[in-house]
Amino acid sequence: MITAIMGGDVIRAVTRAMVALVSEARFHFAEDGIHSRAVDPANVAMVIVDIPREHMEAYSIDEEKTVGVDINRVYDIAKTIKKKEIVEISLEDESRMKIRFGSVEYVLSLIDPSAIRKEPKVPNLELPAKVVLDAGEFKKAIQAADKISDHVVFRSDETGFYIEAEGDVDKIVFHMSEAELIEFNRAEARSMFSVEYLKEFVKIAEAGDLLTIYLGNNYPVRLVFEVADGKAKVEYILAPRIEAE
Amino acid sequence: MITAIMGGDVIRAVTRAMVALVSEARFHFAEDGIHSRAVDPANVAMVIVDIPREHMEAYSIDEEKTVGVDINRVYDIAKTIKKKEIVEISLEDESRMKIRFGSVEYVLSLIDPSAIRKEPKVPNLELPAKVVLDAGEFKKAIQAADKISDHVVFRSDETGFYIEAEGDVDKIVFHMSEAELIEFNRAEARSMFSVEYLKEFVKIAEAGDLLTIYLGNNYPVRLVFEVADGKAKVEYILAPRIEAE
Amino acid sequence: MITAIMGGDVIRAVTRAMVALVSEARFHFAEDGIHSRAVDPANVAMVIVDIPREHMEAYSIDEEKTVGVDINRVYDIAKTIKKKEIVEISLEDESRMKIRFGSVEYVLSLIDPSAIRKEPKVPNLELPAKVVLDAGEFKKAIQAADKISDHVVFRSDETGFYIEAEGDVDKIVFHMSEAELIEFNRAEARSMFSVEYLKEFVKIAEAGDLLTIYLGNNYPVRLVFEVADGKAKVEYILAPRIEAE
Repeated sequence: MITAIMGGDVIRAVTRAMVALVSEARFHFAEDGIHSRAVDPANVAMVIVDIPREHMEAYSIDEEKTVGVDINRVYDIAKTIKKKEIVEISLEDESRMKIRFGSVEYVLSLIDPSAIRKEPKVPNLELPAKVVLDAGEFKKAIQAADKISDHVVFRSDETGFYIEAEGDVDKIVFHMSEAELIEFNRAEARSMFSVEYLKEFVKIAEAGDLLTIYLGNNYPVRLVFEVADGKAKVEYILAPRIEAE
Repeated sequence: MITAIMGGDVIRAVTRAMVALVSEARFHFAEDGIHSRAVDPANVAMVIVDIPREHMEAYSIDEEKTVGVDINRVYDIAKTIKKKEIVEISLEDESRMKIRFGSVEYVLSLIDPSAIRKEPKVPNLELPAKVVLDAGEFKKAIQAADKISDHVVFRSDETGFYIEAEGDVDKIVFHMSEAELIEFNRAEARSMFSVEYLKEFVKIAEAGDLLTIYLGNNYPVRLVFEVADGKAKVEYILAPRIEAE
Repeated sequence: MITAIMGGDVIRAVTRAMVALVSEARFHFAEDGIHSRAVDPANVAMVIVDIPREHMEAYSIDEEKTVGVDINRVYDIAKTIKKKEIVEISLEDESRMKIRFGSVEYVLSLIDPSAIRKEPKVPNLELPAKVVLDAGEFKKAIQAADKISDHVVFRSDETGFYIEAEGDVDKIVFHMSEAELIEFNRAEARSMFSVEYLKEFVKIAEAGDLLTIYLGNNYPVRLVFEVADGKAKVEYILAPRIEAE
């Protein structure tokens, strides 16, 4: 029997993060917390989600379990939970999960994990630039770029971090100098990405959340969001788009 | 000449309650207040609405009148009135009604009441269980059940009051114990109802409103909402669904 | 080089005012501020927009310029700016405009002004009645009238100012007496107008904004809105509809 008690904001952020890429996923209830990983059907992006044990209100686990979850359904439920509301998730066996909050208890049928696409390995990426900024600012930049183009360039050099989008006639540049960034190692890097994916990713972000970007040259980017007041970590790895010469 | 002065919240709640079932209805302006009753075209549900004289800001009536009202149109107007705004409804004769608030006055043509479907008799129902709870909690339970199934079971026994919905794979149980309920007579009862109707009914309910449920066994339920800070009473009577064996 | 710094509320109100009638417009960056004028394709309404220099946060101009602007695009950007946010608009030449706020900078291609429909002359109108009221009240009246009819009558006499709409069966009258109006010269006037246009015009108005109406007899009306806390002036001139006998 496993019981995990957490804030409504945590289950909401974590399921929102997953639905951006997949409709079903394996969740691992481990000694040190709850973990999940998935890649989207096009193999362009990976999501890695962690709720560390110490960030839950309570967590009791007799034996580690891996279960298959219909993410859409859980997100649908999570949306009806208030952020500050306390949620209890319990697993008696691999066939059913209970989600309880207020006077309501859901009993969800689980999916056989072996029927869900195998989890991806997390690639070992050497990414020179590290940029830490307010996730709310990043969200505004992506939403602005989306009005101009379907792709953006992330770029960093000693003058700061840039997000650039170019449309047929118009252009947008988002720029934060080292002084405006929370942390920055001044490394040079530059890659181009699809706005379609980024637009989905930023939906979990709120002003005040911390975002760490690891950027390389024509290489995948790692976007590590600390959401729900830092109680959950959501990492996206996104493949670059090839720039036409 | 009849003049009724009431809060915007009252006219809004009462017309919202009626549009859930009908598009036209007879309203009785009587000495003791304003009353209306109607059944839906499928004869599955009845709505009974009362605005007692003592809950209006002012009420002057020289002669009782029954008028036919296009409920959709009045609800459309009511939606534009703020909750705290004062509304004056006046009737000079059976052909026109004036609705006045702020600097705006509507003059609405009335419908010949004899052209509107005859009002239902209120059935005499023996319902053993009485449950009083926060209408906001009930609303959340119905909205949650709606994600799972098109029908719900209302059930009470000495352990409390239950709302249960079962889908193809998932299940939801809403449970309030005697301690969590405002009033409860611990009687046993159980009936099944259509979520389609309940979903409409709860639209008038807000957290803090009082709801009294009278429940029987495979028998209609009476749902009595006290809305607009207790200034109006809306009662729904809903026929049960037959449970398949 | 021209640089204009203003509140997000100003650029938002001004571009919203223009999109009500046109998708492209000429903007004049003059010594005394920024100005634009346009008529709708049907020649029924004109909009005149002014941001006086003294109502901007800062304004530096070396040489007056006229530029052609894709209003839809600028309004699209303006909607993403917060009301209190500071925006910098800069023009190096007639081909590109930069809009900068927070960490974001847009570079917009401009349109050759000679490719945009010639600006209208402002007609010289003798309008006897002058009515000053809260634009929020006017907005509510127009939105209410829209539920009843596609045209409204504006009317003034010594008893006050009236907006009247008559539908097939229902009627609405909005009335403000001299005491309720902010200013009123008690002149008699009466003209009928299309609700379609008025509905668009009031979208810029908020409770607390000042609206001055100049009304004649079967003659165009001038509606002068002071928006964005009085920092921008938007004037609409609307042709009357002919009343059927």
